[in-house]
Amino acid sequence: MSDDLQKELGVVRDEIDAIDAQLLELLNRRARCAQQVGEIKARHGEAGFIYRPEREAQVLRRIQGLNPGPLSNENVTWLFREVMSTCLSLEQPLSVAFLGPLGSFTGSAATKHFGHAARLLPQSSIDDVFREVEAGHAHYAVVPVENSTEGAVGRSMDLLFSTPLKICGEVVLRIHQNLMTREPSLDRVTKVYSHAQSLAQCHEWLNRNLPNVPRISVGSNSQAAELAMQEAGAAAIAGEAAAERFNVPILVANIEDEPNNTTRFVVLGRFDAGISGRDKTSLIMSAPNRTGSLHNLLLPLAEAGVSMTRLESRPARHTLWEYVFFVDIDGHRDEPKVAKALAELQQQAAYLKVLGSYPAAVY
Amino acid sequence: MSDDLQKELGVVRDEIDAIDAQLLELLNRRARCAQQVGEIKARHGEAGFIYRPEREAQVLRRIQGLNPGPLSNENVTWLFREVMSTCLSLEQPLSVAFLGPLGSFTGSAATKHFGHAARLLPQSSIDDVFREVEAGHAHYAVVPVENSTEGAVGRSMDLLFSTPLKICGEVVLRIHQNLMTREPSLDRVTKVYSHAQSLAQCHEWLNRNLPNVPRISVGSNSQAAELAMQEAGAAAIAGEAAAERFNVPILVANIEDEPNNTTRFVVLGRFDAGISGRDKTSLIMSAPNRTGSLHNLLLPLAEAGVSMTRLESRPARHTLWEYVFFVDIDGHRDEPKVAKALAELQQQAAYLKVLGSYPAAVY
Repeated sequence: MSDDLQKELGVVRDEIDAIDAQLLELLNRRARCAQQVGEIKARHGEAGFIYRPEREAQVLRRIQGLNPGPLSNENVTWLFREVMSTCLSLEQPLSVAFLGPLGSFTGSAATKHFGHAARLLPQSSIDDVFREVEAGHAHYAVVPVENSTEGAVGRSMDLLFSTPLKICGEVVLRIHQNLMTREPSLDRVTKVYSHAQSLAQCHEWLNRNLPNVPRISVGSNSQAAELAMQEAGAAAIAGEAAAERFNVPILVANIEDEPNNTTRFVVLGRFDAGISGRDKTSLIMSAPNRTGSLHNLLLPLAEAGVSMTRLESRPARHTLWEYVFFVDIDGHRDEPKVAKALAELQQQAAYLKVLGSYPAAVY
Repeated sequence: MSDDLQKELGVVRDEIDAIDAQLLELLNRRARCAQQVGEIKARHGEAGFIYRPEREAQVLRRIQGLNPGPLSNENVTWLFREVMSTCLSLEQPLSVAFLGPLGSFTGSAATKHFGHAARLLPQSSIDDVFREVEAGHAHYAVVPVENSTEGAVGRSMDLLFSTPLKICGEVVLRIHQNLMTREPSLDRVTKVYSHAQSLAQCHEWLNRNLPNVPRISVGSNSQAAELAMQEAGAAAIAGEAAAERFNVPILVANIEDEPNNTTRFVVLGRFDAGISGRDKTSLIMSAPNRTGSLHNLLLPLAEAGVSMTRLESRPARHTLWEYVFFVDIDGHRDEPKVAKALAELQQQAAYLKVLGSYPAAVY
């Protein structure tokens, strides 16, 4: 390196060193504050409530609002996520059960929500994830609920119906689809494997780029990736993690038609969350089976001016009703407007279960 | 929550908010400095050298020296690792090939060294890891070299012999062994599977706790975990990642006899590192096959006062010499004392390859 370069770099590096010393001081002051929070709560008999989802959401939203750049909001949210996770772990290390393996989309969601200091406990089925938390072996669970790629939604919803656990958070993860194959170019691809939902997500891309190649629907994207590795001429559509797991080269990345292809996960614990200022509430309802009953059922929400962000019907099992409805609404169950609408719903619905109120996903 | 509690918490939370605003400001100032470093290097035609292993090691060591607590040195090193990783990714996102799958010990080592912002590329063999970087598909490789649990050392060493890549870093990872089984208690365990090295690491624990139970050596700890999941009465000794991968409950954690059970990895890239102030240099040497030749070979090091931290001999393949020696020494090849010793060695040895100089592991 030239002397000039060394000198110029030296100036900037001295500045970085000065910044780092300040950062270090502040991080430790923050950790002492977190300890004080723990002490105060212990003195008031609330030692079990060190992790407060609504408070974490507020901190992260505030950071995003203040962020001047050049770090992106995603960058700073991640860094503060890690700072909070580390400070919290001094007080109460959290354990999180999720649908494994490590490296799965759900694992990414768990880390995105709880940070690196949480202990991740991968489970081999969604049933096991619920069971681990219900049995007290883990503090929190993370499961997919609206999963555009793995088809796991149904099971999560069935288990939400019967679990005593509460939803205390949501995580939204951007999902990219990739065409992976051992072949060196598209013209060597003779079939494409994927889960039906993933094939549908890349429908237009396939029409344009592989118009005459058969599309074969298989049970999961992981299975598709495995087949692509084994069979000459085969390609799979799957996420990056599957390409990594089965060591199949990605030929074309990000082929999803919809640029905003996401999967939504919920975080479950023994309690739901307090009011954060931008919250959602999830419900399960059912109506007696007559025409127009759904409309009547939803009327209290409309009249109270509560917006619905999701409505999904699902054939009921082991119940008196033919359908159950999964409904997400804006607002917290403790906000007067929402509380009033829920009281009305309680009157109307044959069955109503409030799954929990929680901060809307922060990033 | 009581009003008192709310009020007390409010005071501390206000302080945290103030700290966070300062942290945010400093993090962005740091990112701007990192951008300046990039601009300065580009102006001097060194745009490819944004990542400097020796500089990162210096920053982390300084942080550890300044850290007042309550955050542990491990906590703050991790947080600054993430801060640097994020700042660097604005300039030059790094890709890192490693021995997969995700969740393996080597994956943990890669994240420990490069932070979360690096792109991890798991490979299914050590050969593939080297190849990815040699072919320019990844910037860096992470491979185990002294692996007390997976028996992968040999292949790494053979490939180090022939690769044009240079060692630019090392990572030391604490490895815990665990007894995992589907059985509810130790008295139900009728056999223990593990890799021979892992059985050896837990020899005393097994003598004390499972004295009459047969120990069966298998090819890898992963395989042992899989068998423990399949066979009634079977237990495995393996790391946490294997328990997670095969969903076998851990019955007793941290059963290794040696409390300092670690695995050492090296980071490989196209260039080695500059002087960081606390460095190592790795060499491969061979001697003509005569008695006393190893002693003669090492004499220049002893005379120059250079300490050896590791010496390992390995039967040579495809070479004229019967043995090659893998030697790690303290110090950087550009330090006069080391440079002089290496020049002497060059005279004495039938073959000498300097694999690289790099900062000693920081945490």
